[in-house]
Amino acid sequence: MIATKAKRSEKTLTCKQRFLGAIENSPIDRPPVWLMRQAGRYLPAYQEVKKNFTFLEMCRRADAAAEVSIQPFDILGVDAIIVFNDILIPLEHMGQKVDFTEKGPVVAPAARNAEILAGIHRGRFDETPAVFDSIAEIRRRIGGDVPILGFAGCPFTLSAYMVEGVVSKSLRYIKELLYANPRLLEKTLDLLTETVIDYLRIQIKAGADAVQIFDTWAGELSRSDYRRFALPYQRRIIEAIQSEGTPVILYVKGSSHVIDEMKASGASVLSVDWRINLRDISNRLGEGTVLQGNLDPTVLYAPPETVRRMTQKILDDAGRRTGHIFNLGHGVLPETPVESVQALIETVKHYDYSSR
Amino acid sequence: MIATKAKRSEKTLTCKQRFLGAIENSPIDRPPVWLMRQAGRYLPAYQEVKKNFTFLEMCRRADAAAEVSIQPFDILGVDAIIVFNDILIPLEHMGQKVDFTEKGPVVAPAARNAEILAGIHRGRFDETPAVFDSIAEIRRRIGGDVPILGFAGCPFTLSAYMVEGVVSKSLRYIKELLYANPRLLEKTLDLLTETVIDYLRIQIKAGADAVQIFDTWAGELSRSDYRRFALPYQRRIIEAIQSEGTPVILYVKGSSHVIDEMKASGASVLSVDWRINLRDISNRLGEGTVLQGNLDPTVLYAPPETVRRMTQKILDDAGRRTGHIFNLGHGVLPETPVESVQALIETVKHYDYSSR
Repeated sequence: MIATKAKRSEKTLTCKQRFLGAIENSPIDRPPVWLMRQAGRYLPAYQEVKKNFTFLEMCRRADAAAEVSIQPFDILGVDAIIVFNDILIPLEHMGQKVDFTEKGPVVAPAARNAEILAGIHRGRFDETPAVFDSIAEIRRRIGGDVPILGFAGCPFTLSAYMVEGVVSKSLRYIKELLYANPRLLEKTLDLLTETVIDYLRIQIKAGADAVQIFDTWAGELSRSDYRRFALPYQRRIIEAIQSEGTPVILYVKGSSHVIDEMKASGASVLSVDWRINLRDISNRLGEGTVLQGNLDPTVLYAPPETVRRMTQKILDDAGRRTGHIFNLGHGVLPETPVESVQALIETVKHYDYSSR
Repeated sequence: MIATKAKRSEKTLTCKQRFLGAIENSPIDRPPVWLMRQAGRYLPAYQEVKKNFTFLEMCRRADAAAEVSIQPFDILGVDAIIVFNDILIPLEHMGQKVDFTEKGPVVAPAARNAEILAGIHRGRFDETPAVFDSIAEIRRRIGGDVPILGFAGCPFTLSAYMVEGVVSKSLRYIKELLYANPRLLEKTLDLLTETVIDYLRIQIKAGADAVQIFDTWAGELSRSDYRRFALPYQRRIIEAIQSEGTPVILYVKGSSHVIDEMKASGASVLSVDWRINLRDISNRLGEGTVLQGNLDPTVLYAPPETVRRMTQKILDDAGRRTGHIFNLGHGVLPETPVESVQALIETVKHYDYSSR
């Protein structure tokens, strides 16, 4: 019966129906697919636009942002468009400057002491921030049948950039604050939570159908620290956004030790990296848990036949007939061959739930 | 009865008895304590020696290596001395050059293609390598009652340095090899396994009482890749060394998803990072599993009272009366305050198994 339903819907499902169907765990034809950092410099068409602007200008110009956001849909045929933006943009509205250098992002002044942290305020979005216009422009260009994703960083991950300035592998400064002055960190996380909720609401108002929140660095925390400094803030954001009717996807890198806490966040979808086996986690958390992931992005450096085999393995591991959004375990890496990404997407598109 | 035994042994246990007692899971007075990278630049006494030599010279000169190896024992009172050396030294015997720069180690030529990998050979230790003399010199200076630890990198982690040259966060090049040409990687891992066994045997012959093998990067692998590219080689080393009577401690960073595989390696001791809760893992793997760890090294940037509290928490979490070696979850970080390390060590030394 599910097979019949899926067969029937195969020809009629829009990308948005497929995407939201997966999130709602309802019968669809195949898993939807999109890739974190799918709009990026591995795409020649992106480079073409990028050569005229800095990274920040791209985030600020609706035309450029919309153009590169839509490229992966046009060129690769992904099922969802994520707005071109950056998780650090809200920090610019909270009293810091963000710069994107060759070596990565730099936040200044690094809020490594109480004095600088005292100057941090809840994000002020008096004028409509650029992300609103970018999403509205994507919607105008793409129409209503393709889902648009908004996104934001989670408070712990944003606090790491805020305090470190340049994030170090050991997260020295944010952890120093966490251990030496946990209340001050909590106060900062509160401000970030309010700011992130505001920023996501702006994106939803502009037309985002779902949002992803990135707690990339929270996997560096012990389980008890995750429970105190990551989970409660994730949960507040998720509750605020989901209660208004928009699904939230929660991504954490290296989350094996906190997967139960991710589940407890109440997020509509848990986005996990390649360290987690989808079969194991599906068995453990139940088929009711919607999962996103989780191909290791370095697989895309391998020959296309390897990409197809590894993609197929993840589809089989997921063992689903719905409730799985195919993605990478982390963002697309620089110099990823476009053919590999195409091989991935074709493999997912050939997967047919009705034949399982 | 255990309490009585422990009480009795309290005054008579040497550091070596305590250390080997913990490994054998037999009654001792308190957990032994040592710290990964305990001989390092956070110690002014180390800086004093270091200013006369490069890092590689320190590894090659038995007098300097012995001096800095013993410093943490003299200054901080750790229970074990680990020889000053580096996991990359064996690569110098396999056809590559290793350089230690401000930004980290550089291995050249990076073996990123089959041609360069074809030039890699099993380590040739024709002359006694410096590490032999360093350990012999430590033994001469310290006597027989203090355990000396030898160490080596595990094959997968060494292959990452060998292939990447400069290890990137994404492990792009080693994973490219892993996915594109797994057999060639396996051949390389075979060579590394034989080399590591040889290198450890030299250290044991020189006087090492136990050895630690570091598979720092193996936690970046998915569980199935860990099973294929990390576990079998760990196991071969562990079997070779333990069958000759020397215990092996296995360290993996970020090992939550592969802790069962770590156990399956047969290592005498599993050394884990702060992402793992010792109570959970003790319950899961059983009291028979000897654990090492696992304070987050960034805690040492916090005030001493926080260090004491967090150290105490780990001792309580371990909930042991033996079978726990106190350590960090990763190496001591630069600029760590010596007082914090002292607070840690004092806290462990005040912990009394007989009063539990």
